[in-house]
Amino acid sequence: MTNYFSSNFKLGILGGGQLGKMLLYNTRKFDIYTCVLDASKDAPSKIACDEFHLGNLMDYDTVFNFGKKVDILTIEIENVNVDALEDLEKAGVKVYPSSKTLRIIQNKAKQKLFYVDKGLPTAPFSRFAYLSEIEDAITNGGLDFPFVWKAAQFGYDGNGVKVVRQLSDLEGLPKGECIAENLVPFKNELAVIVARNPSGETKTYPVVEMEFHPEANQVEYVICPARISDEVSKKAQDVALKTSNAFNHVGLLAVEMFQTKDDQILINEVAPRPHNSGHQTIEASFTSQFEQHIRAILNLPLGKTNSKVGGVMVNLVGAEGFTGDVIYENIENIMKMDGVTPHIYGKKQTRPFRKMGHVTIVNEDLNEARKIAEDVKKIIKVISK
Amino acid sequence: MTNYFSSNFKLGILGGGQLGKMLLYNTRKFDIYTCVLDASKDAPSKIACDEFHLGNLMDYDTVFNFGKKVDILTIEIENVNVDALEDLEKAGVKVYPSSKTLRIIQNKAKQKLFYVDKGLPTAPFSRFAYLSEIEDAITNGGLDFPFVWKAAQFGYDGNGVKVVRQLSDLEGLPKGECIAENLVPFKNELAVIVARNPSGETKTYPVVEMEFHPEANQVEYVICPARISDEVSKKAQDVALKTSNAFNHVGLLAVEMFQTKDDQILINEVAPRPHNSGHQTIEASFTSQFEQHIRAILNLPLGKTNSKVGGVMVNLVGAEGFTGDVIYENIENIMKMDGVTPHIYGKKQTRPFRKMGHVTIVNEDLNEARKIAEDVKKIIKVISK
Repeated sequence: MTNYFSSNFKLGILGGGQLGKMLLYNTRKFDIYTCVLDASKDAPSKIACDEFHLGNLMDYDTVFNFGKKVDILTIEIENVNVDALEDLEKAGVKVYPSSKTLRIIQNKAKQKLFYVDKGLPTAPFSRFAYLSEIEDAITNGGLDFPFVWKAAQFGYDGNGVKVVRQLSDLEGLPKGECIAENLVPFKNELAVIVARNPSGETKTYPVVEMEFHPEANQVEYVICPARISDEVSKKAQDVALKTSNAFNHVGLLAVEMFQTKDDQILINEVAPRPHNSGHQTIEASFTSQFEQHIRAILNLPLGKTNSKVGGVMVNLVGAEGFTGDVIYENIENIMKMDGVTPHIYGKKQTRPFRKMGHVTIVNEDLNEARKIAEDVKKIIKVISK
Repeated sequence: MTNYFSSNFKLGILGGGQLGKMLLYNTRKFDIYTCVLDASKDAPSKIACDEFHLGNLMDYDTVFNFGKKVDILTIEIENVNVDALEDLEKAGVKVYPSSKTLRIIQNKAKQKLFYVDKGLPTAPFSRFAYLSEIEDAITNGGLDFPFVWKAAQFGYDGNGVKVVRQLSDLEGLPKGECIAENLVPFKNELAVIVARNPSGETKTYPVVEMEFHPEANQVEYVICPARISDEVSKKAQDVALKTSNAFNHVGLLAVEMFQTKDDQILINEVAPRPHNSGHQTIEASFTSQFEQHIRAILNLPLGKTNSKVGGVMVNLVGAEGFTGDVIYENIENIMKMDGVTPHIYGKKQTRPFRKMGHVTIVNEDLNEARKIAEDVKKIIKVISK
């Protein structure tokens, strides 16, 4: 058994944003020597790691040389140089998620084809090498409006996704590889996080419900457990577990799904790392997703994923019209509210819709938590001087 | 309202041990710029703070110059230079706990006299300027065996306390100021942590029960909530709250108490900072003691102190017979147990009885948590290579 705690063992994390920062709560808790690589000298993960390295996550040499310093390497962001990860694996570094998994997930077209290949439910789609091929398909009658255009690579948080209802909606979109997916009418957007370790042990978190902001296409409330039937809940967890196993995944896999009008579950997309929908686990679950990811990649036994209490999370995003040194207006007011705690990621500059933090509301009564969360959203404002 | 979050505000912590380390989880969560002073270059709090300063906490100039850099200063250990704190207060730095409170608490005789003065219940005692005066009192018939000898200053974790049953038990004890306290037969050792902010808002945690190790005089199990009647529980919380108010305290006050055979509550001693008995709050409470201390000293609203689940904590202390680079033997075995998570403080060297970490066991059923905690203690061993 490798000694990870207070030892010579080294963990590496590619990416130094808030997900990495919250992973570091647990490497500190377990006294695991951790190195972080990020392009920004103001990265939220900069302090609280043992070594911070400045560098470009998409650069082969940077990632390879960083990875060579550690025994196990993980990510908190998908946009990393995967060729370097593949060569690190050959050089004996354990990389989780694997380069193979990451290549599939990084490309939305490959991802969708993988689901189809493994018999996992997902909305029907077509893949196109170029945007122009979509236009041809529409002209030929092979593709009907409306559909959802998705860039094959580098979409994040609502960018790289667009509902297309008429030809002019295609104007200005990137011209490269993409998919056109059926616009499926859905009841709910759900997410399930699955943890899996190299021994194949798995644990599945309760289903969360994601209420989305209509314009910004960002999550507004994350509610756990989702207010759905046990039957649909079980279906969603089964799909998520099958997906994690299909990838032979190690670490966390966050599976975002649609619950259709007739209660079918369709996979939207996955993230092979801790996920926004799992932040509420810090206060609401027996095992936070961040501790769980560390347990999984170190092949330690997985922790219990039951909830202690109901949890609702709201994101703190920069208010429109404000750019500059951040001020969290009225934060002290929300802190007097029952079961409320804010998480401030440490980004010094705010701008509209930038993810600056989140607030979790826990309560034995989930409906109470949801009500309080509405008040939180009304009161706290992320503005600038 | 001062802007504490992601701002120019600076917090200072005197002491860089595990209590400070766990405070830093929350300064990181809130992005509060934090400076730490400690004498050891391997201090557990060294990383995860914004500035780490090496220096002697008992040295006037060191403490004064450190305190001048920050807006609010707090402690995680009582052994600090109080004259420097008093002068910092005069210079406009907010110091919590106050130098006045710390002077009283640092000296056990002063502490006991304070309780008597404020009408707070505590075991009868006599104060002696020198150990030789105790011998005189015994000879004169003014003091009977058995009694508890306590050094007035610098006792910690069982040292500086001794049950005296015969004259020879006094041999080898420090010769200075001390108290002789009645040896009160008790049913339980209890602790209550009270939070109080400068606005006078208070919140009291549930009573915890401390089961002690007979020889080492260190806590073996901390159980929350204590398995006592509601009536005794209320008494204990009332005494703790009165004590915090009597000090006009700011921050956390951990009040250790005896429950006598006839269910009276007597104060044993207090700690004006986060406390070992409160570690289980991280997983078991709506608000961890560490977040609570930060809220209190920043005059933010206090968080809810209810428990989410039952919690039992066991300390991880160095096993007898082992000194050197630490190994946490069988730690992976305890991590597969229900609701169990270890905290490893980051001290690289173990020695017998050194506090190296703790393990918290949470469960909806407190008796189940207590059973699992026994298994944890049997299985995990803190040894060396």
